[in-house]
Amino acid sequence: MTTPPRPAPAHVLDWLDEAAERRAKAGLTRRLRPRAADSTALDLAGNDYLGLARHPEVKAAAAEAAHRWGAGATGSRLVTGSTEAHAQLEAELAAFCGTESALVFASGYAANLAALTALAPAGTLLVSDAGNHASLIDGCRLARATTAVVPHAQPAAVAAALAGHDGPALAVSDAVFSVDGDAAPLPALAETCRAHGAALLVDDAHGLGVLGPGGRGALAGAGLAGAPDVVATVTLSKALGSQGGAVLGPERVIRHLVNTARTMIFDTGLAPPAVAAALAALRLLRAEPALAERARTTAATLHRRLTAAGLTAHPPAAAVLSLRAPSPEAALAWAESCRGRDLLVGCFRPPSVPDGISRVRLTARADLTPTQLDTAVTTLTATAPH
Amino acid sequence: MTTPPRPAPAHVLDWLDEAAERRAKAGLTRRLRPRAADSTALDLAGNDYLGLARHPEVKAAAAEAAHRWGAGATGSRLVTGSTEAHAQLEAELAAFCGTESALVFASGYAANLAALTALAPAGTLLVSDAGNHASLIDGCRLARATTAVVPHAQPAAVAAALAGHDGPALAVSDAVFSVDGDAAPLPALAETCRAHGAALLVDDAHGLGVLGPGGRGALAGAGLAGAPDVVATVTLSKALGSQGGAVLGPERVIRHLVNTARTMIFDTGLAPPAVAAALAALRLLRAEPALAERARTTAATLHRRLTAAGLTAHPPAAAVLSLRAPSPEAALAWAESCRGRDLLVGCFRPPSVPDGISRVRLTARADLTPTQLDTAVTTLTATAPH
Ligand SMILES: Cc1ncc(COP(=O)(O)O)c(C=O)c1O
Ligand SMILES: Cc1ncc(COP(=O)(O)O)c(C=O)c1O
Repeated sequence: MTTPPRPAPAHVLDWLDEAAERRAKAGLTRRLRPRAADSTALDLAGNDYLGLARHPEVKAAAAEAAHRWGAGATGSRLVTGSTEAHAQLEAELAAFCGTESALVFASGYAANLAALTALAPAGTLLVSDAGNHASLIDGCRLARATTAVVPHAQPAAVAAALAGHDGPALAVSDAVFSVDGDAAPLPALAETCRAHGAALLVDDAHGLGVLGPGGRGALAGAGLAGAPDVVATVTLSKALGSQGGAVLGPERVIRHLVNTARTMIFDTGLAPPAVAAALAALRLLRAEPALAERARTTAATLHRRLTAAGLTAHPPAAAVLSLRAPSPEAALAWAESCRGRDLLVGCFRPPSVPDGISRVRLTARADLTPTQLDTAVTTLTATAPH
Repeated sequence: MTTPPRPAPAHVLDWLDEAAERRAKAGLTRRLRPRAADSTALDLAGNDYLGLARHPEVKAAAAEAAHRWGAGATGSRLVTGSTEAHAQLEAELAAFCGTESALVFASGYAANLAALTALAPAGTLLVSDAGNHASLIDGCRLARATTAVVPHAQPAAVAAALAGHDGPALAVSDAVFSVDGDAAPLPALAETCRAHGAALLVDDAHGLGVLGPGGRGALAGAGLAGAPDVVATVTLSKALGSQGGAVLGPERVIRHLVNTARTMIFDTGLAPPAVAAALAALRLLRAEPALAERARTTAATLHRRLTAAGLTAHPPAAAVLSLRAPSPEAALAWAESCRGRDLLVGCFRPPSVPDGISRVRLTARADLTPTQLDTAVTTLTATAPH
């Protein structure tokens, strides 16, 4: 043990305190609030759309995999981090979603970074929707391509961006936007891409398990699953109740990712318990296709009743619903009042909202009871800012 | 369901096949080889340095957490993704490593992206070692800072880069470099940073559980743990046998990450089974500090015996050991011959090696028996390229 002779200067990171003060003044301080296992609060904040994270079969699959495979994957997918469980999940995910092939990552975030960096090398034009998720934005920034950010959900803007470009191009969009829960115009986007010889990358994080026939996702719903020019990413952490992500698409895309994607080559494989849990959830969904519809119906009901009570929200395309608040402070106070009444809702404030509008964000779960829906509507309207 | 009228053009992604052909010609094609749960191969490829991924207490902790908390965290850390298990792991990790605070991420990769983007805003100079891990490189590219890449493990080069800069600066280095297993000159690096008013970020992915007193990591070993100007990142996926990562440092750093790090705010929290497994592994390590030394001794023994047999490798600073191969094809053939004799070793080829030199990469586990060591040495020397 050697101790460097020069004393540590305590002031080097003082700028962090100044930043904290600025946040506090703007009412934008966030802190973690760990939840208890026996919390009885009504959860309309998480993304467990089908209520499968705590399904007995999903929990049992995770537990069994821990015993069978160990707690971790022990290495990157190309070294020791691929188990037969990973391969099984990939085969069943691809079959379910109607694509040739699938590749599992440690997170949905990592899957998006992989897809963008591997599919948009230097010389490519990336056309990215202004409302895209942070992981897609980071993927665009990491890719060696040039990125054009286009106005939200406007195929004409995508067409204009593609029109001037000569060479490979990739348009990228969330299928369901995570802030407002609105949908991308997928058929028009695909049509636009095809007219310009561009490929299309769709992040179906909030569509898998909720949209399309039996929850097969937004691309299946739009008749685009399995198309040779379309790639999808999904997460295993929302409707499938686990952790992880995947890229779905033509076999040659997956082969390319295995060979070039940095978050595949340099990241430890997804832990076997998470792999097994996602597979168990997928099988439950396959066996009970009505689950997806139930999540959508619940969201539509919530929207109908909350807007009838005078609140403002986009009609939900899937199971995400955001209620607008007049300010970050109002959004926070609203969410806090709900929490005080044992209702958990999300609070989205700058900088997590691209348009600067603060929201209280709800998610509809397939397993919410009519009584829970009543409670949610009553609480949300009683605590709403004026 | 609507089907876009325009047929999907099959050729849009044809360039992927051309890239695949170029890789095949260069002997650089990679493919996944899922392993079976009952494989009896001797594993010198994974990063499970202490053999804890399959320890009964670690597996039981993961299984118990799946039942107690569910398979997934269900949301980002700031929404529903923080459980009391996350908080417990953070408290015990910080206490063990001797830092004020800790913050857990879904992967070590995500922890590195978080630390770099949050601690190196625009105007910062990032000084990055040329041998740094891909996740640090990607973090530098995502940060709004300017990055200077400096020659490998040379504090004088770091000093030269910092000398000309006026304003905040952050030097970043792996503690143990993942390719060759050599160590960063941490005391000299800290001294250099302090002389220039720069902060220091150290990725201790391969040091935690192996280096420092009782496996407390490279920073503890260098007397730098808990310093106000030093931040560490670790992974939970190597010595702790699980999945995930963490940033360790002063409380104000952690608070800043909670408020600004994109892979904290926009990524689902680490799955509870992985959280619990990492905590169980940490407790085993705390209870049996000799584990860390055993991993180091095993690595030193392997190095001594393999170099005595004429092979070329850096002396291992921790538990990673790389044997140089004359070409990518030779490295692959070597690794394949080992696999044919039931010994798993890693094969690092371009583009995963910054210097273009292909290697067969070994990891020493604390639980390797003398017989297994004998087998490994015999197999590696018998199959070595001439
Ligand atoms: C649209 C979208 N894409 C990607 C992700 C990242 O997925 P994960 O949290 O599984 O990493 C999320 C949410 O976390 C998301 O909402
Ligand atoms: C030095 C280093 N940093 C970070 C990582 C990423 O950690 P993880 O695989 O847990 O995401 C790795 C290996 O995977 C590594 O070797």
